[in-house]
Amino acid sequence: MTSITGFHTYDVRFPTSATLDGSDAMNPSPDYAAAYVTLRTSDEARSGHGFVFTIGRGNDVELAAIRALEPLVTGLDLDATLDDLGGISRRLVGDSQLRWLGPEKGVMHMAIGAVLNALFDLAAKRAGLPLWKWLASLSARELLDLVDLRYLSDVLSRDEALEILEEGQQGKAARIAALETDGVEAYTTSPGWLGYTDERLKGLLVEAQEDGFAQVKLKIGKSLDDDVRRLGLARDLLGPTTRIAVDANQVFETEQAITWARELERFDIAWLEEPTSPDDILATAAIRRAIAPMPVAAGEHVANRVVFKQLLQAGAIDVMQIDACRVAGVNENIANLLLAAKFGVPVCPHAGGVGLCEAVQHLAFFDYAAVSTRSEGRRVEWIDHLHEHFVAPAVVRRGRYVAPSAPGASTEMHLASLEQFSYPSGPVWVGTNGTGADGH
Amino acid sequence: MTSITGFHTYDVRFPTSATLDGSDAMNPSPDYAAAYVTLRTSDEARSGHGFVFTIGRGNDVELAAIRALEPLVTGLDLDATLDDLGGISRRLVGDSQLRWLGPEKGVMHMAIGAVLNALFDLAAKRAGLPLWKWLASLSARELLDLVDLRYLSDVLSRDEALEILEEGQQGKAARIAALETDGVEAYTTSPGWLGYTDERLKGLLVEAQEDGFAQVKLKIGKSLDDDVRRLGLARDLLGPTTRIAVDANQVFETEQAITWARELERFDIAWLEEPTSPDDILATAAIRRAIAPMPVAAGEHVANRVVFKQLLQAGAIDVMQIDACRVAGVNENIANLLLAAKFGVPVCPHAGGVGLCEAVQHLAFFDYAAVSTRSEGRRVEWIDHLHEHFVAPAVVRRGRYVAPSAPGASTEMHLASLEQFSYPSGPVWVGTNGTGADGH
Repeated sequence: MTSITGFHTYDVRFPTSATLDGSDAMNPSPDYAAAYVTLRTSDEARSGHGFVFTIGRGNDVELAAIRALEPLVTGLDLDATLDDLGGISRRLVGDSQLRWLGPEKGVMHMAIGAVLNALFDLAAKRAGLPLWKWLASLSARELLDLVDLRYLSDVLSRDEALEILEEGQQGKAARIAALETDGVEAYTTSPGWLGYTDERLKGLLVEAQEDGFAQVKLKIGKSLDDDVRRLGLARDLLGPTTRIAVDANQVFETEQAITWARELERFDIAWLEEPTSPDDILATAAIRRAIAPMPVAAGEHVANRVVFKQLLQAGAIDVMQIDACRVAGVNENIANLLLAAKFGVPVCPHAGGVGLCEAVQHLAFFDYAAVSTRSEGRRVEWIDHLHEHFVAPAVVRRGRYVAPSAPGASTEMHLASLEQFSYPSGPVWVGTNGTGADGH
Repeated sequence: MTSITGFHTYDVRFPTSATLDGSDAMNPSPDYAAAYVTLRTSDEARSGHGFVFTIGRGNDVELAAIRALEPLVTGLDLDATLDDLGGISRRLVGDSQLRWLGPEKGVMHMAIGAVLNALFDLAAKRAGLPLWKWLASLSARELLDLVDLRYLSDVLSRDEALEILEEGQQGKAARIAALETDGVEAYTTSPGWLGYTDERLKGLLVEAQEDGFAQVKLKIGKSLDDDVRRLGLARDLLGPTTRIAVDANQVFETEQAITWARELERFDIAWLEEPTSPDDILATAAIRRAIAPMPVAAGEHVANRVVFKQLLQAGAIDVMQIDACRVAGVNENIANLLLAAKFGVPVCPHAGGVGLCEAVQHLAFFDYAAVSTRSEGRRVEWIDHLHEHFVAPAVVRRGRYVAPSAPGASTEMHLASLEQFSYPSGPVWVGTNGTGADGH
């Protein structure tokens, strides 16, 4: 018997604030970071990898939460655990004492997500398949067993969920073949950070178009004049065909979002992302009603399936943006995919940061293969940095994600990277002031 | 100049699971705990005290979050900080890197609450007043400066908030005098834990009535048959006048909550508390519509003012239950009181646990003195245990909280208690298996 023997954890941080990569209206100077966990087993050849993406300070808090889960999984029979990933999910999310710290939100919930994702990494490796393909190989009932439908029954019964998954089994082989040939569409946010000059923005937009991206995304929300200028510049440069989305990163009040959107609508906006608080279902719905037909997108900071359910119920979003590390792992993201399928809303996963592209691509491939079965309106965010730290980095070619082929969840980082960027003792950090160039 | 020199933190846990005090349908065996922080200053005579209440495992995670805030306040001029408690609140809540861990929810947000509450403790001590009376001594504009109205403007403008606070200044002296004479109404949850036998329930109910409580609360939600029996027994014993509230602690799906409530309505239920997920605004509203006129109460697990705003907008609650430790301190709870006043919904604070009565009573007294200015329908939860660990424990007499008179926020624990119940090294814990009798 192989058993789970414990965790190795790493506080990994990249000094991205030095270049303003990742700067937006809410996050002026992030240091992209990962609270990273290696799930060790009694078989040295078998380990699972997961992480929570953070933007610097507080990465240590996230690690403390991950370590709080170690006693709950250490000693478990590995294969029995992998045979019942729904069970371990319910056990971690439902731990009555830890649940108090959320419930099902924030630091503790994301930590559970990292541990569950590490278990899915192990499960896919055991099957010798990339995660998306392993998930797509499961039957409708096996998939349903992975998911906790608690608090969803008012919009999604167990029978309805099963029906969606059974429909997803039809024609699956052909879709898997298509995914392996063509991948899924990507869009790029790399050109559009708020901290970049107009010249840099222009250069990167041209590059994005040359690279074959059919959609780019620009950050907005600091200055309306600047946004009008930057969007005018982008639309002129890209012509009428390339889609341009904008992302406010939660900075607006309701009325402000509506005013801003109306000023930008002449640039033919693909979607307005995160106009206000990610908890504000009713305000997001009010904004969407007021700015229609401009689509509204949200989800990267949505804490759990209960909030996604309500965003869909309230008609608040046109585009649902799941994140691989915000919720309780692959399990809860399957619940999110089922909710989106029920409401017929396309899922366009949030990515970027460090490792988010690697992790979330599997959910997009799986969604097309076996849940939504549709590709129209679906595209996955792509930001081309920090991929070199991963053992099986995500690959985008001609504006499309290439189907991952290595066994596992693509969440494993190189040991050398874990050590080099270890905070605060790694060589990159020694002698610096630490994370937070935006200062205290 | 007195400066803030740093934190002392304590992981304090009480082995309450041994007696099933605090057992409910969601939390079968809590070990009441506090992630406790003493804010130290360069003046030995001045320190502030705050904490996050948890129920055992994970208390260390909460402490890690509190410690992550230490660099943000260490070195600040104490009096300048106390002169601008709105400013420090916005700085901590708005820290762009730490914000990613919520935003404004869960472990990180509660940690910010503990630090802010410790600062309010210091501010009230500086004024030589109990916190409620110090808050009540402030002008409408000074109070408004404490509050972050971000994301509230669609229902509460700055002008409206100021108007509520200015109205609250009228007749204030008379209300303060009344509070000092009569206190505020309490209700008791002590009899109603799920883990208690019928005999114990009956004995405690009689005791509660003899002690002068006009309302008791019973936990429900594990077995409908048991709940019908226990409520029948309680109603028979108490007669028709004593109010009986019930608390489901989030265990129901929407339809289940409605069915359960209809079975219990013959017992004349004062309110149904937390019928479902605390994030589920729309389901709570649907439940309220279906079970009217039975009132619905919620809030102890509401993550922030944005969720409270929506519960009120959606008409989801008849009773708003703020908690002293769940949100970003006194600042955000003043925002919550303003929202409740705007919608005319009574605030009946959640308490119990360890220190929650001590901390939240100040907000109830302040609410009556200077915000809602009403007492009808307002009552504060009371559970009579663990008060002996506090330097200025909350006092309830003849079913009413006595106005706190000691300077400060009543959040300071005895050093002997901090040491005795220190986890895992304190004498109470040495030689045990640790928190979590429900087993891991």
